[in-house]
Amino acid sequence: VTRVHVVGASGYAASEAIRILRKHPNVRLGALESATHAGERIGAHAPSLRALDRTYDAPGTTLAVLAEGDVALHAGRAHEAAALVPALLARGARVIDFSDRFRSTAVSGEAVYGFPERYADAIARARLVANPGCYPTATLLAVWPLEVFAAGIEQIVVDAKSGISGAGRAPLTGSLFAEVAGDVRAYGLAGHRHAPEIVAELAALGIEAPLTFTPHVVPLSRGMLVDAYAICSYELADDALAAAYRRCYASNPFVRLLPPNQAPNLPGLVGTNDAEIHLSRSGRVVRVLCAIDNLGRGAAGQAVANLNLMLGLPTGTALDDRIVA
Amino acid sequence: VTRVHVVGASGYAASEAIRILRKHPNVRLGALESATHAGERIGAHAPSLRALDRTYDAPGTTLAVLAEGDVALHAGRAHEAAALVPALLARGARVIDFSDRFRSTAVSGEAVYGFPERYADAIARARLVANPGCYPTATLLAVWPLEVFAAGIEQIVVDAKSGISGAGRAPLTGSLFAEVAGDVRAYGLAGHRHAPEIVAELAALGIEAPLTFTPHVVPLSRGMLVDAYAICSYELADDALAAAYRRCYASNPFVRLLPPNQAPNLPGLVGTNDAEIHLSRSGRVVRVLCAIDNLGRGAAGQAVANLNLMLGLPTGTALDDRIVA
Amino acid sequence: VTRVHVVGASGYAASEAIRILRKHPNVRLGALESATHAGERIGAHAPSLRALDRTYDAPGTTLAVLAEGDVALHAGRAHEAAALVPALLARGARVIDFSDRFRSTAVSGEAVYGFPERYADAIARARLVANPGCYPTATLLAVWPLEVFAAGIEQIVVDAKSGISGAGRAPLTGSLFAEVAGDVRAYGLAGHRHAPEIVAELAALGIEAPLTFTPHVVPLSRGMLVDAYAICSYELADDALAAAYRRCYASNPFVRLLPPNQAPNLPGLVGTNDAEIHLSRSGRVVRVLCAIDNLGRGAAGQAVANLNLMLGLPTGTALDDRIVA
Amino acid sequence: VTRVHVVGASGYAASEAIRILRKHPNVRLGALESATHAGERIGAHAPSLRALDRTYDAPGTTLAVLAEGDVALHAGRAHEAAALVPALLARGARVIDFSDRFRSTAVSGEAVYGFPERYADAIARARLVANPGCYPTATLLAVWPLEVFAAGIEQIVVDAKSGISGAGRAPLTGSLFAEVAGDVRAYGLAGHRHAPEIVAELAALGIEAPLTFTPHVVPLSRGMLVDAYAICSYELADDALAAAYRRCYASNPFVRLLPPNQAPNLPGLVGTNDAEIHLSRSGRVVRVLCAIDNLGRGAAGQAVANLNLMLGLPTGTALDDRIVA
Repeated sequence: VTRVHVVGASGYAASEAIRILRKHPNVRLGALESATHAGERIGAHAPSLRALDRTYDAPGTTLAVLAEGDVALHAGRAHEAAALVPALLARGARVIDFSDRFRSTAVSGEAVYGFPERYADAIARARLVANPGCYPTATLLAVWPLEVFAAGIEQIVVDAKSGISGAGRAPLTGSLFAEVAGDVRAYGLAGHRHAPEIVAELAALGIEAPLTFTPHVVPLSRGMLVDAYAICSYELADDALAAAYRRCYASNPFVRLLPPNQAPNLPGLVGTNDAEIHLSRSGRVVRVLCAIDNLGRGAAGQAVANLNLMLGLPTGTALDDRIVA
Repeated sequence: VTRVHVVGASGYAASEAIRILRKHPNVRLGALESATHAGERIGAHAPSLRALDRTYDAPGTTLAVLAEGDVALHAGRAHEAAALVPALLARGARVIDFSDRFRSTAVSGEAVYGFPERYADAIARARLVANPGCYPTATLLAVWPLEVFAAGIEQIVVDAKSGISGAGRAPLTGSLFAEVAGDVRAYGLAGHRHAPEIVAELAALGIEAPLTFTPHVVPLSRGMLVDAYAICSYELADDALAAAYRRCYASNPFVRLLPPNQAPNLPGLVGTNDAEIHLSRSGRVVRVLCAIDNLGRGAAGQAVANLNLMLGLPTGTALDDRIVA
Repeated sequence: VTRVHVVGASGYAASEAIRILRKHPNVRLGALESATHAGERIGAHAPSLRALDRTYDAPGTTLAVLAEGDVALHAGRAHEAAALVPALLARGARVIDFSDRFRSTAVSGEAVYGFPERYADAIARARLVANPGCYPTATLLAVWPLEVFAAGIEQIVVDAKSGISGAGRAPLTGSLFAEVAGDVRAYGLAGHRHAPEIVAELAALGIEAPLTFTPHVVPLSRGMLVDAYAICSYELADDALAAAYRRCYASNPFVRLLPPNQAPNLPGLVGTNDAEIHLSRSGRVVRVLCAIDNLGRGAAGQAVANLNLMLGLPTGTALDDRIVA
Repeated sequence: VTRVHVVGASGYAASEAIRILRKHPNVRLGALESATHAGERIGAHAPSLRALDRTYDAPGTTLAVLAEGDVALHAGRAHEAAALVPALLARGARVIDFSDRFRSTAVSGEAVYGFPERYADAIARARLVANPGCYPTATLLAVWPLEVFAAGIEQIVVDAKSGISGAGRAPLTGSLFAEVAGDVRAYGLAGHRHAPEIVAELAALGIEAPLTFTPHVVPLSRGMLVDAYAICSYELADDALAAAYRRCYASNPFVRLLPPNQAPNLPGLVGTNDAEIHLSRSGRVVRVLCAIDNLGRGAAGQAVANLNLMLGLPTGTALDDRIVA
């Protein structure tokens, strides 16, 4: 049984991670730090954790109690990660960081990008895993199988729709109910902070086509749909396309390839680590829809999958639930 | 044409007031002050005002430009009203204050409680009108006609459901989409700040029965439903009850008494100054449902009605729209 | 391992029951009948069951395959229950019926009302369990502990707010998104079909006070909040009140008594069999808020709890998840 | 004053048209036919029309009362339009048809496609106007100014998000609240019925590039956002692009060209005939976002604009409101 600490424990993604870890047979919870809510009851901030009879620990608790072999989930911001993660590593912890601080190879050093389908072996050995963002996760799931056709892809257009929990629990005007309800709000129109992460990972797949990325906030708390359009220089063969997706996902228990007449459904994914993918083609345009729970596969679920890899456990440990939202 | 200034102009109620006043034939807009957004484009904060080509004025603008005979809507907080409203009055303006600063007779001095159905004459002469809160407005509309039965009322239970815009545009965690969506959240369980206002106004009607008041936030931006239950010491006669409501509202263009098989509908009220009332009785319990737009009749619409009274205009001027939400 | 069949398997409550039963260690799924969708893939209608690789069985399948010792969940309508349930019993099945056909003692004969907190022993021996409606369930959870004060209760007012899934998956105009969104819709104003069930169960507790019951549809898919107000003839002692609720619920793993400053939260309950209760008193009025998932504790969760009792298993088997909506 | 009849008057688009026409200074309402709700009170089905004290007229009323010079809005289905519209025309009415029956030139004969920005003169003379669908309207508004660059456009990708009211008020399972809430549902993945209308109108502009069209239902009642991506064979000059949009829309009171840092906002458009457009370019991809109210500019608002053209009135008559949703 491995002790897992959570720093920044009162956010949405951290709460979801704690919810999953409570049921994890090989994990026990260590420190649950929150700078903003230290000393307050966890259930007052995380309704799904009301049965957990604890208060948030004060900042610094993880460093104080850390023992060799513990794992720390860092769910704070990038600048906090920059300050704390090296100290956690120096004390012998293995770390999974939710921020984008260590995602780019330039600054990552020993960090491994935590996309299990691609980097399972490196994750298993890693001391620091950079947990991918939700937009890059859904986009990579959609586009990864196209790497075998990379030379023929001329443009990639990604039109993404996300629930507002992706913006976190910070009280921002743009996250207010009265601002989000009734709207479909495009943002980052002059450039979104996640676009470089997507471009870098696509490049790692050999896909160098220009990316046009448009994220939108839609009126839901959780869930994300990415519509990825690959404009190719020729018409790809349908059977080769389908075969590429089956090769990547047929044995992946967390990815469902949908039949042609079935669209992804977000409520059925909320609370799971699953993804649903719909593939079709019209002329030179390949269209791939990918749906995930932005807090599940897009954050906490993927973090637990990475944790499982790091601990040598089956990837799906504690992730095999099928819940309804 | 009267010049109307708005202080605290970037909030939800103020934006709605500006939207209505733009179409008001006897009004032109003066200063539109915002302490938080001075100098920024109005349309960036108030989508319904995107066609209004202006920026927010700096704090102090109203005082600087004020002329005798102008009207100022004060839509800031109570402590700001305490500081600014006397100065505005001293400069010759008439004022409508949206906060609860001047609602209680104890502090109000010359303030008149802006419930047009009851205090039309005093409002017409008032230099300072305290615009009622949304909960008191809906509750008074529901209960006022019962004043003739006041002696027989033993208890009043008010179970209220409000859209989140009633909490204002301040970025509070409890107003976030991800906190409001999917929930019906009771609050103020140990006492709500609007309860004394309701109790005081009911007492002014002669209704002294104890009040149990439970407000809830429901997942909608605008709209409010109040279910008021009057527990009486005897069974009221149905025809006398119905007659009391007709007497109060039959000639009121802003109140619709619904037939027994029709419930109030909130979307049809949003953007209007209207109220819908459903009355029924079972044994010794009289049940009255009252629906309003919390930003319309519950704030901006009522303010404009009060403005109309102050200016000697028909109460419904600029308020006769029927819009769809 | 007991085989469990589901009749009327494509509805919301039935889908939730199947979702829970898939994880039940002592159950395997038998027939999953749907008259409207026989032969169609289950995942096309129930997103939470997309990983279940099956089609709906044709009507009559349960009767055809039934064996002694099987259990059948009947999730169809009352008139269908009237026709089918006796045949299922005659073939040796034990039955849990979701409709209101067998809830009233007048017609029930051997049926036991499936409220585990009150009737656990009878449920354990029952061949037919009438699964309570969601409104009666939440109301009973709120009011049951007051039975010791029954003589002092003069009136009961129940103001209930429900997600629309309680109306089922039938395509009704009143259940359309564009009708439900933005509204808080009271209904059954002339009398709701669940009121007699509540009255009868309260009477069984010795609580004979008149009931005023107002159900509302609120804009959420799942979740229910009941605000129950008991108007008493004298002021109950707060410690006696609190003790009564602790006596009923302190050892009940599915009911959380909330501290005075914490309101029930619906999203944290969705997908669980849990209930949250908030108790307070003001003068002669006792106010009890009770929140449940209408499809969980209000339908499928309670059905599984009853199933567990019938099979001699711990009540919470397969019900101990804590999920997030 | 022209008498205007509405056939199929209980649908969402028809209700919105009636709401607008009630305030139209040059119109009085004639027959308001509904086959499904004849004889029932209008306010029971259309909350925004509760103040309209009328019942729906029986089918056939329009034909019976029609006089030379009347206008009929046909808001029924395409097959009903095929049967009734010729009869209405034969009786001397001018007709605006909301269905897609007369939109394609092949069947339209004398019908004029009711897109005012392009066909104002023909509409003014038309006896039959085919009111465009909401998806084609938003797409044309987004793409029309690109006609001057038609030769350079290689592919067009349109990713559209619509409120569910676009599916009408028919009680369909897919339109239920519990199916729409929490989801972003792509549909028509094998081909949407509106795609040919878009292709045909783009061709009329000289834009012959292949279209990939993906409509989605998002959890809102009203509002539509179209993200149109034009993949070009070369990098268009930004100033020429901007000039093209200004040329089309600078003097159009119903279209707002947004600054680069401002995204379209749907709630601010609901109830209006307005559109908001955001234009940007990245490399060879031109991205145009266009937002409308699907029941406003996408249906009833555009119908009234067409009516105004047919009557020789200013296009914006009765359409100059700015409301808040």
